[in-house]
Amino acid sequence: MRASEIRELLKLLDRPGMISFAGGIPDPALFNLQAYREAYAEVLAENGNALQYSTSEGYPPLRRWIAEYMRSRGVECTEDHILITHGSQQGLDLIGKLFVDPESELVTLAPTYLGALQSFSAYEPDYRAVRFHNGVAETNVTAAKLLYLVPDFANPTGETLTVAERKAAIDLARRTGAVIVEDAAYTELRFEGERVPLIAALDIEESGSIDESRTLFCGTFSKTLAPGLRVGWICGPTALLQKLTLIKQASDLHTATVNQQVTYRVAAACFDKAVEEARKVYKVRRDAMLRALDAYAPAGVEWTKPSGGLFIWVTLPSQLDGAKLLEKAVERNFAFVPGGAFYPDGSGNNHLRLSFSLLPEETIEKGIRSLCELIAEELA
Amino acid sequence: MRASEIRELLKLLDRPGMISFAGGIPDPALFNLQAYREAYAEVLAENGNALQYSTSEGYPPLRRWIAEYMRSRGVECTEDHILITHGSQQGLDLIGKLFVDPESELVTLAPTYLGALQSFSAYEPDYRAVRFHNGVAETNVTAAKLLYLVPDFANPTGETLTVAERKAAIDLARRTGAVIVEDAAYTELRFEGERVPLIAALDIEESGSIDESRTLFCGTFSKTLAPGLRVGWICGPTALLQKLTLIKQASDLHTATVNQQVTYRVAAACFDKAVEEARKVYKVRRDAMLRALDAYAPAGVEWTKPSGGLFIWVTLPSQLDGAKLLEKAVERNFAFVPGGAFYPDGSGNNHLRLSFSLLPEETIEKGIRSLCELIAEELA
Repeated sequence: MRASEIRELLKLLDRPGMISFAGGIPDPALFNLQAYREAYAEVLAENGNALQYSTSEGYPPLRRWIAEYMRSRGVECTEDHILITHGSQQGLDLIGKLFVDPESELVTLAPTYLGALQSFSAYEPDYRAVRFHNGVAETNVTAAKLLYLVPDFANPTGETLTVAERKAAIDLARRTGAVIVEDAAYTELRFEGERVPLIAALDIEESGSIDESRTLFCGTFSKTLAPGLRVGWICGPTALLQKLTLIKQASDLHTATVNQQVTYRVAAACFDKAVEEARKVYKVRRDAMLRALDAYAPAGVEWTKPSGGLFIWVTLPSQLDGAKLLEKAVERNFAFVPGGAFYPDGSGNNHLRLSFSLLPEETIEKGIRSLCELIAEELA
Repeated sequence: MRASEIRELLKLLDRPGMISFAGGIPDPALFNLQAYREAYAEVLAENGNALQYSTSEGYPPLRRWIAEYMRSRGVECTEDHILITHGSQQGLDLIGKLFVDPESELVTLAPTYLGALQSFSAYEPDYRAVRFHNGVAETNVTAAKLLYLVPDFANPTGETLTVAERKAAIDLARRTGAVIVEDAAYTELRFEGERVPLIAALDIEESGSIDESRTLFCGTFSKTLAPGLRVGWICGPTALLQKLTLIKQASDLHTATVNQQVTYRVAAACFDKAVEEARKVYKVRRDAMLRALDAYAPAGVEWTKPSGGLFIWVTLPSQLDGAKLLEKAVERNFAFVPGGAFYPDGSGNNHLRLSFSLLPEETIEKGIRSLCELIAEELA
């Protein structure tokens, strides 16, 4: 089953009564509508600047806000190290355009984020896998252009790399000549425990300064404030940022002016509060999903226990096929994403990605029970 | 002088008292701020949909509005033939990504739009020139991937292709196997005379239907409503649109939801009125610029007399160099874009692009007089 066929199947999700664990999108009830209404009114109050063309680098106050945020997360930088993008997806695309040529070696975990693979695939890299195990990076790659990682609450597994694994990643990047792409889409959604230092922060610590480092951090407001404005950023060494800015200019001139001005105002007013609420809501849902899996999952089924993010990753006994299971699931009014979609090589069919972000506890319980019943029938 | 150096020089334009003919951006006084304020308030009134992820194709009501607009301009199509992009610049980038490989032959007029060259150059095409003369397309190209044209009030020349030239372009595209990119950024800004049929419309007329045609029309609201939202579109045959939609998804998922919803409302409420006002304002400024050139230009200087758009293209005696002239112009507090920037092969140095979009009549008169004095001194 190809990614496009799965997408077609997932379009059925709008059916009434459908319980969808497929999405991975934020709950719109968390968007601070009032703050956005006020911000749009304010930036449009005086003159047409918010509606005019603007620079490719992005809106300076937003870049300064993000630089301060990055510093608070251990990344010593200034606004000159920040390029505003149309979501972190565009960050990945710009980086792919700069670094990836046909046959370039691109190192990722398998599974990894589908959208990153789509974005890089336009430039035809040669995907190579790395595994982190007991603080060691296991791979046979000796030279590479990019090392792509979602270190916190990864899409699709929900797993987080340890400090030792992050350091091993930096070491691997050095050895192979790769630039690291740190996709931080879910980093803020930590439900418990201490933050693990960002790869970008560890890299700067080791290399002495951001301009000596080799990490491009891709950030986004999509999972913290709201995704519909398409505002994200790349933070990294000046020399690379300047090249990426020219590529951004050629790609779409600049990120929508009005949305940058609004995002700056909303972030300045209520970023911390928004993150706190999102953590609280998603934690309750993750707990409900883990409880239901504990209660109903047949023997032989395993799953991750993420400390944050939006996803739990289920491993089925190897004879089961996630894509075939999805067809039956949709008939019973629930859905998920089959794991094969997250592997560059088309393997991983006995996995499922479950998102808990959109549904109330009782619905999660009901849907997981249906899923586990279906799995049990298939195993019988 | 390279494009990046010219950009650096043009950054001086914010100096107080500077008369800039360099821009080519719309006058923000024309933006209907009130309509935008109301539209943002409305789409944010009820729920968070405007702030949520949305489909890569774009917001259906906006796609329907655009399809109706395209039909009113002679392009028989439905919303299925419309893909919303982050400005028409992104339309060019997506098309480049789909069609251009290193060494692909890309046919353009020389001079042509700098941003298109930047956008296509990422994919390393082999630029080949075409000239239209008495309804004939003059070129030695026998096979090509793309034929890129700005048929109405072109950037940088202000010139418009005749019906015969457009038909010759379609014929050339057929013969060479090329897809036509019709960049319609300025099409609506006609000050006088009858509309010339769109290439997309002529192509459909000849080929029988849009799905049999080979034209990708790149539209934008940047020159009619406002550029800061980054909302444009591609209109073309379904088979190509589907591929472009997947590329759009990989590039940045979708165009900002909120801006699409707002653009739909503003377009539905006041597109015709906005266009009418823009035409009126820019016509007065074009007239002022042409009058000043007539009054002050030394012998040997020639310029185009565009029926619309934002630009006049000046041809200097061949011993003069536009880039060197710009350095002296900036010292005297006025500026323009040297023509060399619009030629893929680095020629065209004895041209200047002048935009009349941003300045009141008296300032235009003053700036053109300074320009003509400088040219006269250089020729002396």
